Amino acid sequence: MSKIRVAVIGCGAIAQRRHIPEYKDNEHVELVAFCDPNVARAEQCAAPFGAKVYADYKVLLDEIKPDAVSVCTPNATHASISIDAAKAGAHVLVEKPMASTDEEAAQMIEVAKENGVYLMVGHNQRFMPPHVKAKELLKTGRLGRVLSFRTSFGHPGPEGWSVDGRSSWFFRKEEATMGAMGDLGVHKADLIRWLLDDEVAVVGGLIATIDKETDVDDNAVCILQMKSGAIGSLVASWTYYKGEDNSTVLWCENGVLKIGTDPVDQVIVELRNGSVERHQVGAIATNEKQTTSGVINAFVDSIVTKTPPSVSGEEGRRSLEVILAAFESRATGKLISL
Amino acid sequence: MSKIRVAVIGCGAIAQRRHIPEYKDNEHVELVAFCDPNVARAEQCAAPFGAKVYADYKVLLDEIKPDAVSVCTPNATHASISIDAAKAGAHVLVEKPMASTDEEAAQMIEVAKENGVYLMVGHNQRFMPPHVKAKELLKTGRLGRVLSFRTSFGHPGPEGWSVDGRSSWFFRKEEATMGAMGDLGVHKADLIRWLLDDEVAVVGGLIATIDKETDVDDNAVCILQMKSGAIGSLVASWTYYKGEDNSTVLWCENGVLKIGTDPVDQVIVELRNGSVERHQVGAIATNEKQTTSGVINAFVDSIVTKTPPSVSGEEGRRSLEVILAAFESRATGKLISL
Amino acid sequence: MSKIRVAVIGCGAIAQRRHIPEYKDNEHVELVAFCDPNVARAEQCAAPFGAKVYADYKVLLDEIKPDAVSVCTPNATHASISIDAAKAGAHVLVEKPMASTDEEAAQMIEVAKENGVYLMVGHNQRFMPPHVKAKELLKTGRLGRVLSFRTSFGHPGPEGWSVDGRSSWFFRKEEATMGAMGDLGVHKADLIRWLLDDEVAVVGGLIATIDKETDVDDNAVCILQMKSGAIGSLVASWTYYKGEDNSTVLWCENGVLKIGTDPVDQVIVELRNGSVERHQVGAIATNEKQTTSGVINAFVDSIVTKTPPSVSGEEGRRSLEVILAAFESRATGKLISL
Amino acid sequence: MSKIRVAVIGCGAIAQRRHIPEYKDNEHVELVAFCDPNVARAEQCAAPFGAKVYADYKVLLDEIKPDAVSVCTPNATHASISIDAAKAGAHVLVEKPMASTDEEAAQMIEVAKENGVYLMVGHNQRFMPPHVKAKELLKTGRLGRVLSFRTSFGHPGPEGWSVDGRSSWFFRKEEATMGAMGDLGVHKADLIRWLLDDEVAVVGGLIATIDKETDVDDNAVCILQMKSGAIGSLVASWTYYKGEDNSTVLWCENGVLKIGTDPVDQVIVELRNGSVERHQVGAIATNEKQTTSGVINAFVDSIVTKTPPSVSGEEGRRSLEVILAAFESRATGKLISL
Amino acid sequence: MSKIRVAVIGCGAIAQRRHIPEYKDNEHVELVAFCDPNVARAEQCAAPFGAKVYADYKVLLDEIKPDAVSVCTPNATHASISIDAAKAGAHVLVEKPMASTDEEAAQMIEVAKENGVYLMVGHNQRFMPPHVKAKELLKTGRLGRVLSFRTSFGHPGPEGWSVDGRSSWFFRKEEATMGAMGDLGVHKADLIRWLLDDEVAVVGGLIATIDKETDVDDNAVCILQMKSGAIGSLVASWTYYKGEDNSTVLWCENGVLKIGTDPVDQVIVELRNGSVERHQVGAIATNEKQTTSGVINAFVDSIVTKTPPSVSGEEGRRSLEVILAAFESRATGKLISL
Amino acid sequence: MSKIRVAVIGCGAIAQRRHIPEYKDNEHVELVAFCDPNVARAEQCAAPFGAKVYADYKVLLDEIKPDAVSVCTPNATHASISIDAAKAGAHVLVEKPMASTDEEAAQMIEVAKENGVYLMVGHNQRFMPPHVKAKELLKTGRLGRVLSFRTSFGHPGPEGWSVDGRSSWFFRKEEATMGAMGDLGVHKADLIRWLLDDEVAVVGGLIATIDKETDVDDNAVCILQMKSGAIGSLVASWTYYKGEDNSTVLWCENGVLKIGTDPVDQVIVELRNGSVERHQVGAIATNEKQTTSGVINAFVDSIVTKTPPSVSGEEGRRSLEVILAAFESRATGKLISL
Repeated sequence: MSKIRVAVIGCGAIAQRRHIPEYKDNEHVELVAFCDPNVARAEQCAAPFGAKVYADYKVLLDEIKPDAVSVCTPNATHASISIDAAKAGAHVLVEKPMASTDEEAAQMIEVAKENGVYLMVGHNQRFMPPHVKAKELLKTGRLGRVLSFRTSFGHPGPEGWSVDGRSSWFFRKEEATMGAMGDLGVHKADLIRWLLDDEVAVVGGLIATIDKETDVDDNAVCILQMKSGAIGSLVASWTYYKGEDNSTVLWCENGVLKIGTDPVDQVIVELRNGSVERHQVGAIATNEKQTTSGVINAFVDSIVTKTPPSVSGEEGRRSLEVILAAFESRATGKLISL
Repeated sequence: MSKIRVAVIGCGAIAQRRHIPEYKDNEHVELVAFCDPNVARAEQCAAPFGAKVYADYKVLLDEIKPDAVSVCTPNATHASISIDAAKAGAHVLVEKPMASTDEEAAQMIEVAKENGVYLMVGHNQRFMPPHVKAKELLKTGRLGRVLSFRTSFGHPGPEGWSVDGRSSWFFRKEEATMGAMGDLGVHKADLIRWLLDDEVAVVGGLIATIDKETDVDDNAVCILQMKSGAIGSLVASWTYYKGEDNSTVLWCENGVLKIGTDPVDQVIVELRNGSVERHQVGAIATNEKQTTSGVINAFVDSIVTKTPPSVSGEEGRRSLEVILAAFESRATGKLISL
Repeated sequence: MSKIRVAVIGCGAIAQRRHIPEYKDNEHVELVAFCDPNVARAEQCAAPFGAKVYADYKVLLDEIKPDAVSVCTPNATHASISIDAAKAGAHVLVEKPMASTDEEAAQMIEVAKENGVYLMVGHNQRFMPPHVKAKELLKTGRLGRVLSFRTSFGHPGPEGWSVDGRSSWFFRKEEATMGAMGDLGVHKADLIRWLLDDEVAVVGGLIATIDKETDVDDNAVCILQMKSGAIGSLVASWTYYKGEDNSTVLWCENGVLKIGTDPVDQVIVELRNGSVERHQVGAIATNEKQTTSGVINAFVDSIVTKTPPSVSGEEGRRSLEVILAAFESRATGKLISL
Repeated sequence: MSKIRVAVIGCGAIAQRRHIPEYKDNEHVELVAFCDPNVARAEQCAAPFGAKVYADYKVLLDEIKPDAVSVCTPNATHASISIDAAKAGAHVLVEKPMASTDEEAAQMIEVAKENGVYLMVGHNQRFMPPHVKAKELLKTGRLGRVLSFRTSFGHPGPEGWSVDGRSSWFFRKEEATMGAMGDLGVHKADLIRWLLDDEVAVVGGLIATIDKETDVDDNAVCILQMKSGAIGSLVASWTYYKGEDNSTVLWCENGVLKIGTDPVDQVIVELRNGSVERHQVGAIATNEKQTTSGVINAFVDSIVTKTPPSVSGEEGRRSLEVILAAFESRATGKLISL
Repeated sequence: MSKIRVAVIGCGAIAQRRHIPEYKDNEHVELVAFCDPNVARAEQCAAPFGAKVYADYKVLLDEIKPDAVSVCTPNATHASISIDAAKAGAHVLVEKPMASTDEEAAQMIEVAKENGVYLMVGHNQRFMPPHVKAKELLKTGRLGRVLSFRTSFGHPGPEGWSVDGRSSWFFRKEEATMGAMGDLGVHKADLIRWLLDDEVAVVGGLIATIDKETDVDDNAVCILQMKSGAIGSLVASWTYYKGEDNSTVLWCENGVLKIGTDPVDQVIVELRNGSVERHQVGAIATNEKQTTSGVINAFVDSIVTKTPPSVSGEEGRRSLEVILAAFESRATGKLISL
Repeated sequence: MSKIRVAVIGCGAIAQRRHIPEYKDNEHVELVAFCDPNVARAEQCAAPFGAKVYADYKVLLDEIKPDAVSVCTPNATHASISIDAAKAGAHVLVEKPMASTDEEAAQMIEVAKENGVYLMVGHNQRFMPPHVKAKELLKTGRLGRVLSFRTSFGHPGPEGWSVDGRSSWFFRKEEATMGAMGDLGVHKADLIRWLLDDEVAVVGGLIATIDKETDVDDNAVCILQMKSGAIGSLVASWTYYKGEDNSTVLWCENGVLKIGTDPVDQVIVELRNGSVERHQVGAIATNEKQTTSGVINAFVDSIVTKTPPSVSGEEGRRSLEVILAAFESRATGKLISL
C-alpha cells in the first residue's frame, strides 16, 4: 500500500511535540508539506523530511493535494482551514477546540461528509492510559451508577508550553477566541462525556480573567448535570502556579474511582465492601511508544482501515457545546440546557 | 460569679455529642433543663445533672427562665424557638443552618437585638485547628491574593450520625427543609467566607436527590464568585459512600494552600519559590479538650466577657444566604447575585 | 422452613474457632449436639446452645439423627465417622485432609452418594478474599496462560493453634497420619488446582521430620507438573519460626500474579506492558462477618438450596491425591504420575 | 613481576561485559589475544589492547602460548577448549556450567592437575556482596542450623543479555546443551552448597520447555535434600517476564535469613527473640570497583599468589552434578541420590 | 535453696515501677519488708506480699536482717543507708547516683568489702537491648577505633515520672543534691564508659537552672576527653519539652554507630565501604520479661551465683566521678582531669 | 552606573566554586584581576573574563586599583591581605575565619573604617534557606525563649573539597593556623549567635588531632553559655567519615526547632501543644540561582546600595572570638568568659 501523504498546517508547539514526531514514527505516513506564516519555523520542521514549505495553506492544498492534514493553527482558524482541506479531499485531524462556534463545527462535519473524508478532533485525554483503565473499570459494572463527580485541569498557563512563550497566540482573543476553557476545559468536557458514556444536560459557568494580562479567560468553574442525573463540577485554570491538577473523581453507588489523585497509583478504586485497588498504568508512558498522544495513530488507523474515527466531528462538537454553554451561562446569567 | 443557667432544647445527636458534654466541661455553666418531644431521651440527658425535663420548650422557657439556650432541634424550628428564647431573655446558640429562610434569619437577629441577648450560630468549622491554622497562614500575606478555590464536604449520609439512623428527621423535608446543603453545604459557605475574609457575589447551583430515598437534596454542586473576583466550587454530598472528603484548596498568587487533602499533614502550603510547609495540627484533636467543637466555649465566653459572639447572627445569615441562593439558582435556572 | 439440625463431632480448635461460631451466626442452623471423648470439652461447647453432649459419636447419630454433621476429629477418624454419619442420613462437612488414604476418600464419596447426602471438605483457602480476587483476575484472561508457580504455607507449628498445645494429636502419627502436609500442604494442593483450573499430572516430594519431636513430617518440598504443562513448587512447613509464609506466585505469559507477598496489598498483578495493580481485599476480614472461613456458610447454603457443594468429596479427593503422591514419591524415590 | 599474558576465547556478552573490562582494570594482566569464529567481533575486542585476533583457538594457543585463558564460548565447547588450554600450559577460567557432563568435568580437573595449571569456574554469585554478607552472618552461628530453604533465579530470558539477542546460541541445544538450568540453575546449586557449607544428597527435578521456541529447557523446579538433612527448592526460569527473582531464603532454628527479597535491604535477619537486622550491602555495587563480578580478580590473585582458586574445578563439578542429577531425575522419573 | 529475703527501702516511683515488680517476678526472691517515711505508701507496696512495713530503715535492718536491700530513697541518703545495710550484712542494690560525693562512694565500697556483701548500682542503661547490641557490634572491631561521640538524655522533667509530681524530692536540693545530672547525666557517663571500654580523662561542664523553679540543675552540657583520646559531648536536660532524646552516636574510623536516632531501627551502623545495617532490637521490649530494667535480675543472679555484680560499686563510683567533675568544672571554671 | 571592578585574591576551591561564578552572574560586577602564587591556576580562572593575572597581590592592588576584592587565600594571610586591600581603597570580602587572632580582626575593622571601605566576612550559613527559615520562625515568638541547643558541623575532611586534595594548605598549620574549628566551627559559632540574636558569654573546649596526619585540629567539642543563660554544645569535625552532620537543634520554652535533622524537611517545629510543622526549603537549592552562597550578592548589594554589610567585620570578629576562646580553654584548662 502506498503511504498516506500528510501535510501539517501550523507548526507551533502541538505540531512539533506531538503531530510531527508521531507521524514520523508511523510507518503508513509520509510527511509531504508544512505550512506556517512563520516560514522559518515551517522550514525547520520540513527539513528532516525533505518536505515542501508553504506560508499559505490554500496554496499547499492546491499544489500538494495531501491525503490528510493536521490542523494545528490557532483556534480561530480551525474551522475555515478544516473546511478548505476537506473540500480539497483531505482527511482532517483538527486540534481542540475544533471550532469557535457550534455553527462552524456543524459546517465542518457537513463538509467532511459531503467530500467523503474523515474529520477527527485531537481529544488526546481519551487515549491516556489512566483514562483508558478508568473506562475499563467502569465498564465492569462493579462501581455501579456514577452519582456525582469532579474533573479539573489546572496548570500555570501556556507560557511554558507555547514556542512563543508569553507572546503566544494563546493570550490573544482574536486568534484564541477562548483561554483556559478552550485549552483545558474542553478536554475535561470530552473526558467526562466519554467516561460516563453520557451527555451533558445542564451547564452553569463562572468564567473570568483573574490574574493574567490577557483578554481571554484564565479561570473557569462550571457545574454540569448529565442526562443520567449525575451532577458534578468541571474546572479549568491557567493560574494553578502550584498545586497543578489533572484529576477526575467519580463517586458511584458502590464506591469511588479516583484518577490522577496519587503520584504513584494513577487509578484507585475504593469499594464499599472495603476492598481497594491501586493501578499503576502511567509507567507505560516511559516507554517510547506510549508517550505518544495516541491521537495521530488513531487518525492514521482510521484512514488505513477505512473506519470512521472514534473521536469524530460529532463527538468534538458535543464537547465543544459544553464549553460554549458555560460561556453562555456566564454571559446570560442562566443555567443552560443542552 | 454565679453560673450561667443553660437549657438544651432538642436532645438528638448534636446535643448529646457536642453541646451537653462541652457545657458539662465548662466551669461557668450549670445545665438546668432539657427539652425534647421524646421525653425519655430528654430524661436520659438530664439525669446526670439532676436537671428538669420538658416536652414543650415554651413551658421550659416560662418555668426555668434560663440564662442561655442551645437550640438543637430540626432545622424547621430553629427560627421560632430561637425567637421565643430570645424574647424570654435567654442568649441563644442555634445550630446551623440557623433558619430556613432569610426572613426568619433577619427576624432572629432583630429580636435578639431588641431583647439584649446574644445570638450565635453553631458554625464549628471555624474552630477546627486546621482551619484556624489556614486562616493564620493566609493572614501572613505570604500566599498573596486567593485566585480560585474548591471546598467540599461529602460523607455517606446522616444515617450513621443521627441517633435515629435511617428514620432521622434529616430525611424529612417538613422538618429538615433541606438536606446535604443544610447539613454540609452551609458549613463550607461559612468557611470560605471566613477564610477569604470576603463575601459571595454570585452563586449558581445544581442540587438534586440522586440516590437516597428522601424528599431533600442528597447532592449539590455550586459555583461561587466572590466580591474580590475569586471564583470557585462548593460541593455538599451525602452519597460519598467511599472517598469521604472535607477539604478546601485555595490557589493563590504565590502558591497553593491545601486543607484536609493529606492524612497526616492537615494543612500544606506550597509556594512558587519551591518551599513547602506541612502542618500537623489535628493531632491536638486527640487531647480531650481539643476534640470539643469549640463552639460552646466560644458562646459561653461571649456571655461571660459580655462580648458579642464572633459567629454572630449576621454571619450565620450571610452564610445561609449563599445556600439559599444556590436553591434559587436551581429553581430559577439563573445565576444569583447577592 | 425448619432449621437444619447440626451436630459437631470433635470439639477441638477448629470446631471452637470456626465451625461452632459460624453455625451460630447462620440463621438456618440449630446446633443440637456435640461429641468429644473429652466430655467436659463437649459440654463447654454445648452449654450456650442447650445442646446434648456425647462421648461416642455413634450414640449421637443414633439418638439425635442430625440433618448434618461437622467432622472435626483427628485426621485418622475422618473417613469412618463421615461414612457412619452419611449412613445415618446426615450431610457431612469433613475437615481436611478428608481422609488418610485414597480408598477411604473413594468410599466416603460412594457412601454419601448412596445415602443421598452431601459430602463437603473444609478447604477454606478457596473462600479467602485474596484467593477469590486472584481467581477473578485469572478469569479475565489478561495474564494469559500460567507458566510456572510456587505456593507455600509455613508457620511455627500447631503448638500455638491447638487447644492442647504441645500435647496435641497433631504430633501423634496414629491419630494425625501426617503432619505439615496434612495440615498445610493439602490446602495448597487444593488451592493450586482451583486457581489454575487444572489437575496435577506429576508429583515429586521430599518430606522429612527435621526439627520437631514427633513421628509425623514437619517439612515438605514438592514439585508439581500440571496437565497444562505448567510446573511449580509446593511447600509445607511447621518450622518457619520466623518468616511465616502463606503466599502463592503465578508467572504467566503476560505478567505475574502475587498473592500474600505484601503486607498491605494482598494481591498484586504486574503486567509486561508495565502496568501494576495492587488489591487490598483483606481489609474485609476486619468486619465481623468476613472473618468467617466461608466454609460453613457454603455448606449450609448447599443444603438449603439443594445444590451440591462446590468443594465436593471429589474435589477433596483429588487434592488429597496430590499429597499422598508426594508421600509415595518420598517412599519410592520416584516421580509419581497421577 | 612481569604481567600475566591472558587470552580470551569467545567474545560474546560475558566476555565483553565482565572478563575483558575486569582484566583491563587488573594491573597484573596484559590482554594478548582474542578468539572468536566471528572474527569481526574478536577484532573489536582486541583493538583497544593492540592484541592479536584468532578464529581458531588452537592456533591461538600454539602461537601465543598464553599464561592464562578465559573460556567464554558456548557451553558445549567449555570442556574441550579448557583441556586444550591446560595442555598448552595455560591457567583456565571457564564460564559456568564448566562442562556438559560429569565425565568432561572430571577430565578437565585431571588435565589441569597433570599440567600444573589452575582451573577455576566462573560462579560469580559467591562474590556478590549480599551473598558474602549472608555467609558471614551464618558463620556467626546466631541463626543455628538451617532447616529448610528456597533459592530461585528467574528472568525474562537471555534474549536481552546476549549480543546476538533472539538468535543466540543460548537457544540451540547442540551448543548450549542445556537452557535455564545451565544459565541460572547451576548458579543457585553452587550458591546453596557454599552458603550452607553442605553437599546435596538427593535431587528431584521437573524440567520443561514451556513458553520459548527452543529445544532447551526454559523452566525447572527442583527439590533438594542436603547431607545435613535440610530440604529445599531450587528454581530456574527464563519466563519470569515480570516478577524477576534472584532470592534465597533460609529458615533456621533461631530465625530466618532472607537474601534479595527486599528492594532496599538485600539481607534481612529476623530472629525468634524478636530482633530484626537489615543490611544494605548492594550500595557498594554503585562504586566502580564493586560492580565487577569479582571472579576475574580472584582468578588473577590465585595465579599471582600461587594459591589454588577458591571456586576450583572440584567445586564447579559438584555444582554441575546437582544440575545433571535434576535432568536425570526428569528423564528417569526418579529421585537421584548423589 | 531458700529464697533471698529482700527489703525495699524507699517506696517511690523507681521502687514501684522497677524494683518491686522485678523482684516479684524473680523466683529466687521473697520480698519481706518495705520502708518509707510515708507509711501508707509502704503499706500499699507491702500488702500483696504480706510483708512488714517500717518508717525507719534502721529498725527494719535490725528486726528483719534482710539478705539484700534495694535503696530507692532520695539521692542524699543513698550512701548512709547503703552503709548501714551493708553493716547489717545485707547485699545492697543502690539507685543511681550511688552517692553525693566521691568520699561517700569510697566508703560504701569499703564497708561492703569489709562486711562481705555485694554493692551494685542501678545503671540500667547497660541492660537496654539497643545498648547491648551496640556493645556487641563495637566488639566485632568492624567499626575500628571510636574517634568522637555525643550522648544525650533529655525529657520534660521528673514531674511526669515521680509519684509526687511537681512536689517531688527531685526538685529539692537537700534531698536530691543534684538535678538532671544526677537523674540523667550519670546514666550517660556510665554508658559511654562502658560502651567505649574506656575511662574519662578530662571533663568540662556548664550546668544551670534555666527554666524550672528548683534549686537543682535542669540542664547540663559537658565535654569529655577519654583516655584513648576520643572526645565528645554529654548532655542532660529536664527541659526538652518536645524533641525528647536518649541517643548516642559514635563516629569511628570505619563508620558511624547510631543508637536511638531512628524510631524503628534502634541501632544503625553505616560503614565507609557503603554498607548499612539496621537493627530492631527494641521490639523485644514488648515481651513482658524484656520490659524489665534487667538490673534486679542481674543483682539477684549475682547473689545466687556468688559472682560480684558487673555494675559494681567501683563502676558506679567512676561514673559518679564524671558527674562530680562536671560540677567542679562549673564551680571552678576549669577543665577537670580525672 | 559603571560596574564594580573586582579582583579575586587566591584562586583555590572557594574562589572557583563560589566567588567567581557568583560574581560572574552578578550584573553589577566586572572581574578584572586574579591573583595566586600558582599562576597557572590564576590564569585558568582569568581566561573566561580576559582578566589580568598576578602572582603578587600587592602588585595587583597597585596596578589594578580594584573597587573590591575577595580574599580567598589560606587563613594565615586573611588579615594582612585584607588590610592592604582596604588601604588600597578596595571593599573587602574575606573568607572565614576572617583572621587568626583577635588583634588582626580588630586592625582589619579599624583600617577598613579609616579607608572608608566595607569589610564583610564570608559566613554563608546565614544565607542558607533552612537557616533563613529558622530565623523567621524564631522571630514569630511562637517557640518562646531558647533554653538549650546543639549545633554541629562534621564531614570527612577537606581532602574531598580542596583543589589540592590531601596536600591542601588546610592541613598545614603555618598557613591554616587552625583546622576543623576554623573551617567548620566558626560557621556554627556565627550561626548560633545570629539565630539566637545573642552573644556567647562562656566557652569551654576540647580540641584535638585524633585521626588525620596534620598539625591542626581535626575534632573539637565545645560548650557555650549565652548571655541569655541558654547553654549548648558546638561541635566541629573532619572525621565524620560516615554520619555527616550539619544540624542545629534549639530546645525552647514552647517546643523544639530542628534544622538539618531530616533528609526531606529541612526545618521542623514541634510545639508543646502537639502541632508539628515541616518545612521544605532546600528544594530551592536546585534552582540555579539559589545554589549560590548568597554571600557574594550580599557583598555587591552592600556596595551598590552603599549600605554596610550585614555580616560586618564586627560580626565576624565576635564569631572568631568564640573559636579563639575554645582554643584558649583547651590551652589553659579553663572555661573562658567573653
